[in-house]
Amino acid sequence: MWDRLLTDCHVATLEPVGDGPLGIITNAAIGIQDGRIVRVGRRAELAGYRAQEVVPLGGAWVTPGLIDCHTHLVFGGTRADEHAMRRAGASYEEIARAGGGIASTVERTRASSATELLESARRRLRALMAGGCTTVEVKSGYGLDTRAELRLLNVAKALGSSEPVRIVGTLLALHAMPRGKDRTAFVDEAIDEMLPAVAKAGLATSVDAFCEGIGFLPHEVERLFDAAQNHGLEVRLHAEQLSNRGGAKLAARYHALSCDHLEHVDEDGIAAMAEAGTVAVLLPGAFYALQETRKPPIDLLRAYGVPIAVATDCNPGTSPLLSPTLAMNMACTLFGLSPEEAIAGMTINAARALGLERQIGSLAPGKDADLCVWRVESLAELGYWIGLPGPERRVVGGLDA
Amino acid sequence: MWDRLLTDCHVATLEPVGDGPLGIITNAAIGIQDGRIVRVGRRAELAGYRAQEVVPLGGAWVTPGLIDCHTHLVFGGTRADEHAMRRAGASYEEIARAGGGIASTVERTRASSATELLESARRRLRALMAGGCTTVEVKSGYGLDTRAELRLLNVAKALGSSEPVRIVGTLLALHAMPRGKDRTAFVDEAIDEMLPAVAKAGLATSVDAFCEGIGFLPHEVERLFDAAQNHGLEVRLHAEQLSNRGGAKLAARYHALSCDHLEHVDEDGIAAMAEAGTVAVLLPGAFYALQETRKPPIDLLRAYGVPIAVATDCNPGTSPLLSPTLAMNMACTLFGLSPEEAIAGMTINAARALGLERQIGSLAPGKDADLCVWRVESLAELGYWIGLPGPERRVVGGLDA
Ligand SMILES: [Zn+2]
Ligand SMILES: [Zn+2]
Repeated sequence: MWDRLLTDCHVATLEPVGDGPLGIITNAAIGIQDGRIVRVGRRAELAGYRAQEVVPLGGAWVTPGLIDCHTHLVFGGTRADEHAMRRAGASYEEIARAGGGIASTVERTRASSATELLESARRRLRALMAGGCTTVEVKSGYGLDTRAELRLLNVAKALGSSEPVRIVGTLLALHAMPRGKDRTAFVDEAIDEMLPAVAKAGLATSVDAFCEGIGFLPHEVERLFDAAQNHGLEVRLHAEQLSNRGGAKLAARYHALSCDHLEHVDEDGIAAMAEAGTVAVLLPGAFYALQETRKPPIDLLRAYGVPIAVATDCNPGTSPLLSPTLAMNMACTLFGLSPEEAIAGMTINAARALGLERQIGSLAPGKDADLCVWRVESLAELGYWIGLPGPERRVVGGLDA
Repeated sequence: MWDRLLTDCHVATLEPVGDGPLGIITNAAIGIQDGRIVRVGRRAELAGYRAQEVVPLGGAWVTPGLIDCHTHLVFGGTRADEHAMRRAGASYEEIARAGGGIASTVERTRASSATELLESARRRLRALMAGGCTTVEVKSGYGLDTRAELRLLNVAKALGSSEPVRIVGTLLALHAMPRGKDRTAFVDEAIDEMLPAVAKAGLATSVDAFCEGIGFLPHEVERLFDAAQNHGLEVRLHAEQLSNRGGAKLAARYHALSCDHLEHVDEDGIAAMAEAGTVAVLLPGAFYALQETRKPPIDLLRAYGVPIAVATDCNPGTSPLLSPTLAMNMACTLFGLSPEEAIAGMTINAARALGLERQIGSLAPGKDADLCVWRVESLAELGYWIGLPGPERRVVGGLDA
């Protein structure tokens, strides 16, 4: 006797079992026990099983719960004012150099109480959840000292304890330079204080950095990554967004879980990522908000078989994007992904980018019963509608959420 | 004694009374009686008034209810498959010539029952309402014969009767050629049958046409507009989207309520619109979905003082956009509107485009009490967030909806 049997549905398993790239099983049913999937198959095959609760879904489509594998969800204030500057022609780099950009969010974040940070992030989190997210990664990076970074990751953890969603914390140790601080001293602090403190507190599974002319340089990132791996933490990298700094090759050398952005990545970098199994995380919201013109080289990523994930990059400056379904639509419209690639990008490949592909990201026996029920004719609609509100039903750990 | 007093809020009246282009009154209150606004002013000024219900809004921002003044909401099926064609490089014109495009939606629409049309449109309408719409214009145009066009407008009317929203019907008489029909015979039918039937049934206040190389030509539009005005109906025009056909000047000659799209409009057309008081309705969702590069000439529209409205253009082919807040963000991000222009574009100027500026679109005594309550720090956030879910509270005719 299972806990639940979802029936009368079509399922995109994201496993090799079904048809096509999404592993589709039509006329399907899903058995759930103790928060996990016990079995997924044709309805007829599961006909002999009983459950406490049978949930007929009226021919809806079921996907794994969406995973937003790259966000900066916890911050103070907004940066609505920078819109005007960008409309007047200022570039992201110019705004950053003028003391706007990340620095202004750092100030607003430091000036906010933990409760203010928690409640403003909760509103954004609920928007992502309404859009179908069952897992949301949250990076720190607006604190820029050990205490402040720990505070952000604790807020992220508190969100996960109080909302029906899995939160995955990432220490974004090298995001921006704090004002008036010596560069080497800051990198030292990130490595010698922040990183051990976060590892000890168990607040993050990965360490991230912003590798860019206006961010941090390859040799600084290498020092951070060496230290992260010594602490048993995974690494990820913001790389090749505004220019090519060799970040993708660097990250691949460290077997990074993911490289994120990648508008300027070259073929060598892609080959290295493929070899290392590093996921390419595409962030079309930032491309859109900054009105960039250079797109990530999708055809090369495909040719080398690099797994492609898609995320909102939700952040106050360059991607104030609150909708995972819109991230999928933008990945299709702006970058030319197929709807199937966009869906894989917010499920199984996003799970890989978080190192969680054994627990979430597809619908298979033993995995967490995190899933979305969509009232659509075909799953291609997830890439097609612009601003689709979200699924009809969101199930987290087997329970309606 | 009023019915309701909304208090502890900041109000964008969209009237000349307050500060700045949005007519802002801070620390305000709004009195409501019999579904209409009785008074808007500083909280202190309204202190002496009593109401059955006092609603403190905790410092939230209030705008007029959003008005989506250009949609094609009622249709059968989707066109998710055309995404793939467009990614493979086909243009909208090529898809239309290949028998896809509008023609395929006409087939799916004809094959759908009235109930199917009603329920699929209701899902889309509820997405627009959740985003803040209190008024939604709905065009016909996927029927292409008198009976079928009447059916679409009756579905639109039924939506308005069953949901807390105002629906404004528009007869899109010349949208596309029905297959296998003689061109002149079809224009004759639109003028001699459709138009009188719709006017008699009171199902539309305006008549619209698609003036384009792949649509209808100026002399055909002129015949339609002459007939519409003989029936006492207003006129509007889809003009200069893919090429300049002189549609804006034509529409201005007829004192059209609006010209919509306008990517290719020239200065003569804008001058004529300004002279005639014709509203420019911008549709950034179509620009985005078609990945166009030529933007409407915003600076010229501003220089001539043409009122600018913004709408979703929600339709299955070129703008499957379900969110009015996203339409505002796209108007800012893609076309360079200020947040204030985007808000005016979905309130007072949208009301003008529907000929309803005496009833809705701003918060002033005597107008319908249609409004949205936004939990934001500043109204600039309505143009800033990408995929903002919608207001905290939507009031229609004075009642929470
Ligand atoms: Zn980021
Ligand atoms: Zn239209």
